[in-house]
Amino acid sequence: VENFREFDLIRWIQSQVPADDPLVRVGIGDDAAVVANRDAATLVTTDMLVEGVHFSLAEATPRQVGWKAMACSVSDVAAMGGRASAAVVSCALPRGFGQDNARGLVLGLLECAREFGVRLVGGDVTATGGPLVLNVAMLGDTEGRPPVLRSGARADDALLVTGALGGSRLGSHLRFTPRQAEALALAEGYALHAMIDVSDGLAIDLHHILEESGVGARVEAKRIPISPDAHRAAEQSGRSPLGHALADGEDYELLFTLDDAEAARLLAAPPFETQVTRIGTITASGAILVHPGGGEQPLERRGWEHSL
Amino acid sequence: VENFREFDLIRWIQSQVPADDPLVRVGIGDDAAVVANRDAATLVTTDMLVEGVHFSLAEATPRQVGWKAMACSVSDVAAMGGRASAAVVSCALPRGFGQDNARGLVLGLLECAREFGVRLVGGDVTATGGPLVLNVAMLGDTEGRPPVLRSGARADDALLVTGALGGSRLGSHLRFTPRQAEALALAEGYALHAMIDVSDGLAIDLHHILEESGVGARVEAKRIPISPDAHRAAEQSGRSPLGHALADGEDYELLFTLDDAEAARLLAAPPFETQVTRIGTITASGAILVHPGGGEQPLERRGWEHSL
Repeated sequence: VENFREFDLIRWIQSQVPADDPLVRVGIGDDAAVVANRDAATLVTTDMLVEGVHFSLAEATPRQVGWKAMACSVSDVAAMGGRASAAVVSCALPRGFGQDNARGLVLGLLECAREFGVRLVGGDVTATGGPLVLNVAMLGDTEGRPPVLRSGARADDALLVTGALGGSRLGSHLRFTPRQAEALALAEGYALHAMIDVSDGLAIDLHHILEESGVGARVEAKRIPISPDAHRAAEQSGRSPLGHALADGEDYELLFTLDDAEAARLLAAPPFETQVTRIGTITASGAILVHPGGGEQPLERRGWEHSL
Repeated sequence: VENFREFDLIRWIQSQVPADDPLVRVGIGDDAAVVANRDAATLVTTDMLVEGVHFSLAEATPRQVGWKAMACSVSDVAAMGGRASAAVVSCALPRGFGQDNARGLVLGLLECAREFGVRLVGGDVTATGGPLVLNVAMLGDTEGRPPVLRSGARADDALLVTGALGGSRLGSHLRFTPRQAEALALAEGYALHAMIDVSDGLAIDLHHILEESGVGARVEAKRIPISPDAHRAAEQSGRSPLGHALADGEDYELLFTLDDAEAARLLAAPPFETQVTRIGTITASGAILVHPGGGEQPLERRGWEHSL
């Protein structure tokens, strides 16, 4: 594995980034970037991926890892009803990682950035004696609209989710589509009350909404859209496909609430092709999973949480 | 070492952060933070610290590490002539790091944030099988002024530096003062042409200015302010104090240029107590170190660069 130097990598990255973007007043290569504001406030989020925790280099190429890191942050901005604008990326590269792998990471980051209209405006590169670590901090804005928070759900709201859930660890966690287009169409066209992206798992992310909003929910098990990968994962694990859909996480779908009439209007003529499904109703308190036969059980707050 | 959980730590962090800040429309706990814009553009920078590369937990407490991570990013924003406003922090905590150490990190981050007017608005916490990694992404603004770039130096400019340089590894890299107040006073009161913070080392950071500006410099060795720590480091290393001042890095002083008359006005009555010294002159090309006896040698581009 060849040695290469930090500043050579940075110069190469500069050569890969489009010049003359009106939003980018100062890009890669100074002490900080300068990004023109499109709105009265700026969304900001940060997401750290660690080899051995969020991905394995045995399973994922550096390009896929870069793509995922950027996409996770686009998804976070989308979950606010926002549009991602600019990112700064830090990476700690294991000794011997090599220039080709480092460039692969960057190409994956840039591929995702291009697809979702994000400018890569700066970063930090360091060596590490440990595993690969990649951090994306993302700016965005809500195009003048109020952000859609986790805390806005109200009793009697409809609870909806995009796409299908479960089984992400079979590979979709590396190639999901962050639902930015869908989030923008929803935030523009409908009176959303609350929204989150499903990163920790449907059950736990629903609990985030319930806790922040001070409400409860009844979720109909039979309505939860279960992905083909959840069925495949269940064959391997011996657990149920529903269990995978509830707890696997890294689906990066949108989970959101809005009132009954708005939900009906949305479901009658969705403004996008992506599947969208009503899976339940917000209630005053409690979190209940209703089984197809009518039996009920508490919907536990379980999913992906780091034990530290 | 006790186990503790990600969301418990996040709730504790929320409890440590001041509520009701008009700049923070949405703080810790949603998919993204929302920060009100103070200016037409936003500065953004990111800085990653890795245990074993940027600090050692044998030498530094978690609180010092947190403080340093925040301070490095304040320094980057200051080097643009800007004021830091809000930060998002990611950390990868080694298994068994423990709740007390994690809280220590956060207390150090918040101590520095308070001192420099920064809001901690969000973050990401993950486990790692490797060393501690801490990333701070910082927003800021230039209060309506044009940012001070690395690329603005002109031939015949005076070259100045704040503070004294060298020997940071004896401990000052953990307790430096980011020169935000000085940077703001300079940017407000004087026509700065170029500025950078000395993180990689005087020689290499000067070269960043020279390369970006397409100019050269003559630096007078006898004028370089050498810190007491550089002398102590030289006793241990057998190298010269000047060598330490030129190459050690992590001084986090400001290196800047402005025209002769402005420099004279500044030096006649500096707007702050911090030492400020003219160390040389920008020239059309080349980088020369002038020794006290009059001898000259090329000022090499050396200092702290990661070999990856």
